[in-house]
Amino acid sequence: MTDSSLVARDLQHIWHPCSQMKDYELFHPLIITGASKAYLHLQDGRKIIDAISSWWCKSLGHQHPRLKRALQLQMDKFEHVILANTTNETIVQLSEKLTELSPSLNKVMYASDGSSAVEMAMKMSLHARVIEGKTQRKLFIALENSYHGETIATLSVSDLGLYSEPYRSLMFAVKKIAPPYVNGEDDARWDNCELHWQSVLEQLQPYAHTATALIVEPILQAAAGMQIYSRDFLRRLRQWTREHDIHLIADEIMTGIGRTGKMLACEHAGIEADFVCLSKGLTSGWLPLSAMLTRNDIYDLFYDDYANGKSFMHSHTHSGNVLAASVALETLNIMTEEKLCARAGEMGGVMLEAMQAIANHTGKLKNIRMLGAMVAADLICDTNKRYGYEVYRKAVELGALLRPLGNTIYWVPPLNTEWETLCELKNITQKAILME
Amino acid sequence: MTDSSLVARDLQHIWHPCSQMKDYELFHPLIITGASKAYLHLQDGRKIIDAISSWWCKSLGHQHPRLKRALQLQMDKFEHVILANTTNETIVQLSEKLTELSPSLNKVMYASDGSSAVEMAMKMSLHARVIEGKTQRKLFIALENSYHGETIATLSVSDLGLYSEPYRSLMFAVKKIAPPYVNGEDDARWDNCELHWQSVLEQLQPYAHTATALIVEPILQAAAGMQIYSRDFLRRLRQWTREHDIHLIADEIMTGIGRTGKMLACEHAGIEADFVCLSKGLTSGWLPLSAMLTRNDIYDLFYDDYANGKSFMHSHTHSGNVLAASVALETLNIMTEEKLCARAGEMGGVMLEAMQAIANHTGKLKNIRMLGAMVAADLICDTNKRYGYEVYRKAVELGALLRPLGNTIYWVPPLNTEWETLCELKNITQKAILME
Repeated sequence: MTDSSLVARDLQHIWHPCSQMKDYELFHPLIITGASKAYLHLQDGRKIIDAISSWWCKSLGHQHPRLKRALQLQMDKFEHVILANTTNETIVQLSEKLTELSPSLNKVMYASDGSSAVEMAMKMSLHARVIEGKTQRKLFIALENSYHGETIATLSVSDLGLYSEPYRSLMFAVKKIAPPYVNGEDDARWDNCELHWQSVLEQLQPYAHTATALIVEPILQAAAGMQIYSRDFLRRLRQWTREHDIHLIADEIMTGIGRTGKMLACEHAGIEADFVCLSKGLTSGWLPLSAMLTRNDIYDLFYDDYANGKSFMHSHTHSGNVLAASVALETLNIMTEEKLCARAGEMGGVMLEAMQAIANHTGKLKNIRMLGAMVAADLICDTNKRYGYEVYRKAVELGALLRPLGNTIYWVPPLNTEWETLCELKNITQKAILME
Repeated sequence: MTDSSLVARDLQHIWHPCSQMKDYELFHPLIITGASKAYLHLQDGRKIIDAISSWWCKSLGHQHPRLKRALQLQMDKFEHVILANTTNETIVQLSEKLTELSPSLNKVMYASDGSSAVEMAMKMSLHARVIEGKTQRKLFIALENSYHGETIATLSVSDLGLYSEPYRSLMFAVKKIAPPYVNGEDDARWDNCELHWQSVLEQLQPYAHTATALIVEPILQAAAGMQIYSRDFLRRLRQWTREHDIHLIADEIMTGIGRTGKMLACEHAGIEADFVCLSKGLTSGWLPLSAMLTRNDIYDLFYDDYANGKSFMHSHTHSGNVLAASVALETLNIMTEEKLCARAGEMGGVMLEAMQAIANHTGKLKNIRMLGAMVAADLICDTNKRYGYEVYRKAVELGALLRPLGNTIYWVPPLNTEWETLCELKNITQKAILME
């Protein structure tokens, strides 16, 4: 079987995600035959760096032997069993670990997609209002440039037209407010956004009695182009929502489980949300699993005799899939034992320096920013140009899967990426930007 | 670790899907320690029949050695890699097999949840209209008593208030039409629903120029309580939608991959939809994977230079997850090699006879119905009574996980369930109904 025939067979049948399929005519799908640590192995014998952790999920890299062993042990016992009215040691242990992440979030519900976790949180917030008799509270508030998923409801609370424009007729209205962006912790607004806050507060006040929840990606808006906003802003949002009995939903699908240098990005602001959504890094990108954490007092609202009709009936076939759960449990063990949150912070420092060096050398980068093991910068170019896409193609040729968001380039490598790999990634990125 | 402590730990942290958690006070979660074929192994040493294939997904039963081997082989090569701009032998082979299911459905897009597959089809239908300039086509038509998932948009096209009522304020309006129900192929309406059709047609005509798609669970509405409707009705819907340029979306999440005795339930009516959604049986319930199949001419609408803005940007992290794909591929191989569609049909005959015998013996069942390896009947009781729930508890005690939908009891066991297991299931069901 030659390369070209597999590519032809692929293009005959597969509609790839988040792609203009015509782009594949010139830029063929890469044929994966293996993977290890931070590298993808291609059929042509090359090994390229997975600089974006396969869409921000493979936080422990590829083929981690402990994750493989965990999955093998579980599959030798049993694979997925319906979680309605059953339990098992694996899912209990995972749930215990997840509820340790945040002091008040003591209940966990499982799904597979990140979008589904966000939908569960949104539904639960609204449903709680129905049970409480606060039916005037039905509005959602979200941040400008937010991204919370691809279902119609998660697109409604998102603010990136690229993903949602054709589906407007099905979407519901959501109040959007602008966060104060910063390029890092050195920005004065990181810890004090008072001026900005006053204008936001004016926009928020009309919704103090009609909003059910405010949803945020805490601190880091990834799909928006790796934008970072003031942690003081998040603190103030938490305070305002608490004062007005509005739920705060933290979509930590991308940020959670160590990516930002903390297990939850909310920790940067020292706050706790009422709902936290996790996925991606939760299984280190091995298997689809998402989790929604919430408070006991919200759980208690739904807890009653069946006849009283308060059950949260969300039925997810693979809720708590035990194969995925076994990998998630071991991922959390490794995160702790190998102190990977701290390492994410160290990586951020190293990568920030490297990105700055590239900027100095090339003169092609601006707005360099960092949070944990995420460093990003914007390419200096005409906004209509697909410079980012050209960098993507060039980087693959040079040895790295670097998939810019428009003209924003970023590094989100596995949290255990070796230092020499980061060095190699720096060199490749620089050459790709210069098209050398 | 004793039973009670694991249960206590479970109830402290896990919010189980589709449950009133208070019910667990008396009816504890069953502790699963293993599984094999059609049986779940409990910590107390008992083996109980998984009579509902763990929510209709474990079509090849538990611990199938070939599926385990397929997963092991794949995980030894590589696990999940981003599918945007990559490909691999496993996902290509799976896509080839899936596109063989239906002559014109030649493109496949992947997600994890069933709901996401339906959302993709709905978004794609609407998006196609935007591209075609037919922006007046934005309405969806669905069937009464339908169930298409748990996200807000899939609840909008669903018609079961139990799941959607608290979320009405976020849902969009959908035209619902009533299908003509039958209890089996003997019903005259199975092949001729002319009378019923005329009234439906009157309801449909006003939407002939404004509907973008009509979505159905073909023939069998499972969550509605295993309701079967006329195949002639499905034929007529296909004809009407085709005449009026309206897409037909077949949600085969529960019915697909052999459950009804055909690979797709649409085959019972000899029709082909424009979009088909698959999940559940696709991996024989091992891992979350969903697929949406569609036509080349729909794909072609989106195929253009990137700058023209026609890309379908749906981004799903685990699209085409290769571990799940490896299990799905082997599932399809086994379905063919072991002729399990034919076996599903045989099982239906055997189970129908068994259910009729129970009805005769107990006098407690009505409306016995069968389609492929699905047999259902309604318990004769006061509608306010939780007789179904009592049967559930009793059956577990007697040795079967039989999870009625309200007061409808049904059998949806693995397609390779042994005959003596079905016999055992019959005896347990009968005793549970009689509360012996």
